[in-house]
Amino acid sequence: MLSDRMKKLKPYVPGEQPRDQRYLKLNTNENAYPPSSRVETLLRDFDIEQLRRYPDPASKRLRRKIAERYHVRMENVFVSNGSDEVLSFAFYAFFDNTKGTLLIPEFTYSFYPVYCDFYGIECRKVPLSSDFLVDIDALLTAKGSSGIIFPNPNAPTGVSLPRDRIAYLLDNYPSDRAVVIDEAYIDFGGQSAIPLIQDYRNLLIVNTFSKSMSLAGIRLGFAIGDEGLIDALFRVKDSFNSYPVDTLAQLIGETAISDEAYYRSVREKIIAARRYFAAGLEGLGWKVLPSDANFLFAGKEGIPGEEIYQKLRQRGILVRHFNIEGIRAFVRITIGTMEEMDRVLAEVNKIF
Amino acid sequence: MLSDRMKKLKPYVPGEQPRDQRYLKLNTNENAYPPSSRVETLLRDFDIEQLRRYPDPASKRLRRKIAERYHVRMENVFVSNGSDEVLSFAFYAFFDNTKGTLLIPEFTYSFYPVYCDFYGIECRKVPLSSDFLVDIDALLTAKGSSGIIFPNPNAPTGVSLPRDRIAYLLDNYPSDRAVVIDEAYIDFGGQSAIPLIQDYRNLLIVNTFSKSMSLAGIRLGFAIGDEGLIDALFRVKDSFNSYPVDTLAQLIGETAISDEAYYRSVREKIIAARRYFAAGLEGLGWKVLPSDANFLFAGKEGIPGEEIYQKLRQRGILVRHFNIEGIRAFVRITIGTMEEMDRVLAEVNKIF
Repeated sequence: MLSDRMKKLKPYVPGEQPRDQRYLKLNTNENAYPPSSRVETLLRDFDIEQLRRYPDPASKRLRRKIAERYHVRMENVFVSNGSDEVLSFAFYAFFDNTKGTLLIPEFTYSFYPVYCDFYGIECRKVPLSSDFLVDIDALLTAKGSSGIIFPNPNAPTGVSLPRDRIAYLLDNYPSDRAVVIDEAYIDFGGQSAIPLIQDYRNLLIVNTFSKSMSLAGIRLGFAIGDEGLIDALFRVKDSFNSYPVDTLAQLIGETAISDEAYYRSVREKIIAARRYFAAGLEGLGWKVLPSDANFLFAGKEGIPGEEIYQKLRQRGILVRHFNIEGIRAFVRITIGTMEEMDRVLAEVNKIF
Repeated sequence: MLSDRMKKLKPYVPGEQPRDQRYLKLNTNENAYPPSSRVETLLRDFDIEQLRRYPDPASKRLRRKIAERYHVRMENVFVSNGSDEVLSFAFYAFFDNTKGTLLIPEFTYSFYPVYCDFYGIECRKVPLSSDFLVDIDALLTAKGSSGIIFPNPNAPTGVSLPRDRIAYLLDNYPSDRAVVIDEAYIDFGGQSAIPLIQDYRNLLIVNTFSKSMSLAGIRLGFAIGDEGLIDALFRVKDSFNSYPVDTLAQLIGETAISDEAYYRSVREKIIAARRYFAAGLEGLGWKVLPSDANFLFAGKEGIPGEEIYQKLRQRGILVRHFNIEGIRAFVRITIGTMEEMDRVLAEVNKIF
């Protein structure tokens, strides 16, 4: 009954999403603060009659709002049902095996190999540099590559590259191969490469409303790049699901993105809590990678990451552990409120 | 820059979705009535704090509600972001070229060939019978088929098959090949094949909240079938987009499906308007196919369908025309309210 494709499929395993409210949930990098209160007003006043209609398949109003915020044109903006869907369409549109293999960092978002399985794309893992940076020189010297994708800041490390390193990569990489940068976490302290899209027609930036906009629940992602890349993404979308972004999600996205002041204050609070928490862990003798994301990748010498994960879980704190050679010593901890990070520090201090 | 796959891609063209309110929009088979008022109450009371969290990726509460309504188990229910997405996953999971070609009716939902392009699946069109029925005997005698998919009622014809014809098909078709029945329009008068899933493990039924539930705006579709088929769909989903159904869409779906009395009255009104409109058109000398959907497929001898479409458009009425040999004489007209159908009849009477 099943197609041949199914035999090779190894699905992505997302972080636990328990409905159980007792856990302090620091395992899926959700925002510690609610969305803008303007979203509440929107829902109070919403006329449900609109829902009997299909949404605008081109999401023009939302794309215009995103374009305004990033100082690009609407034609440079693609939106879809979560940045995972945007990424999947990008894999379909830009990567195949005719020119070589796709390059990804050795430790990175674990959905990338899943898309490769899904579409039959060969991919190669390029080691990080010794300080856990995405290694631009190694990406450039790798032979026979058909394209490159990595997150900036990288996940699960949280470490980011400055924009001039991205420009250096693009200056030295063949301009007929796509470079996709996944900026899901960029708003928490990194430098966006969006200004580079004017100069590099092979650069696609992917982002999401799930993290800095506190809207993981509505599934809204976007991509910014040259019109040629954006057109290709729309062609894929229109071959897969013509109306992926629902009416409410489009309106909520438009509403949220207009409240810049609120989200600036949210980002500042998270960055402050991250600094505080990193200093606290280091004070307890932990190794903490420098993060520009709303999470930290950290561990303590002599204690396996699995044990940290399990012991915190027993105390009601959910974090993420990856059972992968090379990063087994670490756990990934989402940055919550200052009070939540205090609680984690207190537990860490007690347990270890 | 583009992958090889992109060269062959011919995207689906959805019906026009003008924001212009002046049109009477009878071109995309949206429901003439709003969703249940319980959805309004839900949005008024909704705590937006929930949106900072990812949705339940397994959509358990919603699946349980759907299972209750159809007297199956939660394990028999898959949900996703619109039935187009469910269909796409089904194509990926069940159809390939190793056993033969996929069979679809000659005139049917035009997204099916798009999915075939998207995944590289060979498909073959089987002519309808002379009275525009999906031809079960022709499907059974076609050589080398790897699976079958068709809508019931069929689109764009609106004509449906009784359940015993589906059972006859399943009794005589190899049980290791998937038969997918797309029941998007079943609630407007057809007989669902859902009771057959207990006996046929290769039968998958796909349905949507967009039509009879008046929720095209939220993008919610589902499938019902044997646990083996449902598991496969979840594996595909988890390789593509782990959290496709947003929190609000899940809650709206749960809320709507619980208001059976309201939706029964909506269906009855649409069926009554369809009968009235069909009789009116026939009274004006039109040919009208017998419909169990919320639309009619109709035409008038001597007038090309394209001309009907254009002239109605000039009078502010949007219908759908398919410029395809064999059905060029017809237009597809969504059933609106009784008043709307009266207006269409009056215009038809004036124009032609």
